[in-house]
Amino acid sequence: MAEYTFFFNPMSRAQIARWALHEAAVDYEPVFVPFDNPPAALLAANSLGKLPTVVHHHAGHDHVVTEAAAICHYLAEMSAPELLPRAHEKADYFRWMFFAAGPLEQAVTARMFGWELSPDQERSAGFGSYERALDAIAGWLADRDHVCGGRFTMADVYVGSAIDWGLQFGSIPPRDVFEAYAARCRERPAYREGKAIDGRLMAEMQGEGGAG
Amino acid sequence: MAEYTFFFNPMSRAQIARWALHEAAVDYEPVFVPFDNPPAALLAANSLGKLPTVVHHHAGHDHVVTEAAAICHYLAEMSAPELLPRAHEKADYFRWMFFAAGPLEQAVTARMFGWELSPDQERSAGFGSYERALDAIAGWLADRDHVCGGRFTMADVYVGSAIDWGLQFGSIPPRDVFEAYAARCRERPAYREGKAIDGRLMAEMQGEGGAG
Repeated sequence: MAEYTFFFNPMSRAQIARWALHEAAVDYEPVFVPFDNPPAALLAANSLGKLPTVVHHHAGHDHVVTEAAAICHYLAEMSAPELLPRAHEKADYFRWMFFAAGPLEQAVTARMFGWELSPDQERSAGFGSYERALDAIAGWLADRDHVCGGRFTMADVYVGSAIDWGLQFGSIPPRDVFEAYAARCRERPAYREGKAIDGRLMAEMQGEGGAG
Repeated sequence: MAEYTFFFNPMSRAQIARWALHEAAVDYEPVFVPFDNPPAALLAANSLGKLPTVVHHHAGHDHVVTEAAAICHYLAEMSAPELLPRAHEKADYFRWMFFAAGPLEQAVTARMFGWELSPDQERSAGFGSYERALDAIAGWLADRDHVCGGRFTMADVYVGSAIDWGLQFGSIPPRDVFEAYAARCRERPAYREGKAIDGRLMAEMQGEGGAG
């Protein structure tokens, strides 16, 4: 049995987890999940049936991890310690992991769905506004190659995926700082491996040929 | 100089960070921040001016941490390792930390602001729906005393704050499972210490007496 079971659909945030699985270079069994027919094994692990969901078969137990950011970090904790932050990198690493999972995700969703915030709501919503959330992460990346500075860590898989995905779908504007950061992320061999697999699967699903 | 600087306003999510600071039993200097007049030192550390913001003065550097969940976890990493998850607790710890910071926060905000989601939006929003997000965390806590099972960890400061706060403001319904979990959280001495300080400060702000 593979060390990890990976419930995925290529047309979902599971792409983030696949990149992380390849960064961690772990042995995993992919389980394709049709959106309209989630398998019982997934629903048993995660009642929301959300993708990605990862199960770690470890020391006689099955540990379920959901939430793309949690999966990234968990993989680093258990299987790729070199992608964990060192002591002086921890503040930056956790700050921006949680910023991307919380305020940034929320700001992009609100913009995507056309939800407008009053000034009072902007204060209580926690993300301020779409523009201010983007300015915050843009300011951070303006003079850094990676979330923690000079070194790639697992935080870049998650934050990088948010930026890369947003640029691709137009939910994040093509500012130079975002394009440059995404370009650095796309150079990672593990990014390319993951995207090649998901790209091939999507092509197959859409009947555009593409050998399996 | 204290080891940590803590920018706060008692009427904000800074209450979460204060509880975490007391759980970690660290030396911290509180800096009160009026909402309409954030000090330059805060804006220099965090352009969004968000509260809570914590600065860790460590090994000759100032490390800025924002996002309540990141502050909780950072404090455990640097100053309270007994509140970090053990290997077999890591999946639960990070899964629910990120669930509370992402989908749960987003579901509660959407409900609070009256944002309605179409079925398509429910799938792409990442939190499903308010009801499903609540059912997920309720299901998890139904047969566990804490996020990681039998033992209190820093995840309970963050997840517990989300539940406690939601019950207090009516944004989370008073189901038995939530009330029981919040009651366990409120028994923590550090919770009581933090709430006593913030309660006193709020009373002063509202001119209701309350000695300093």
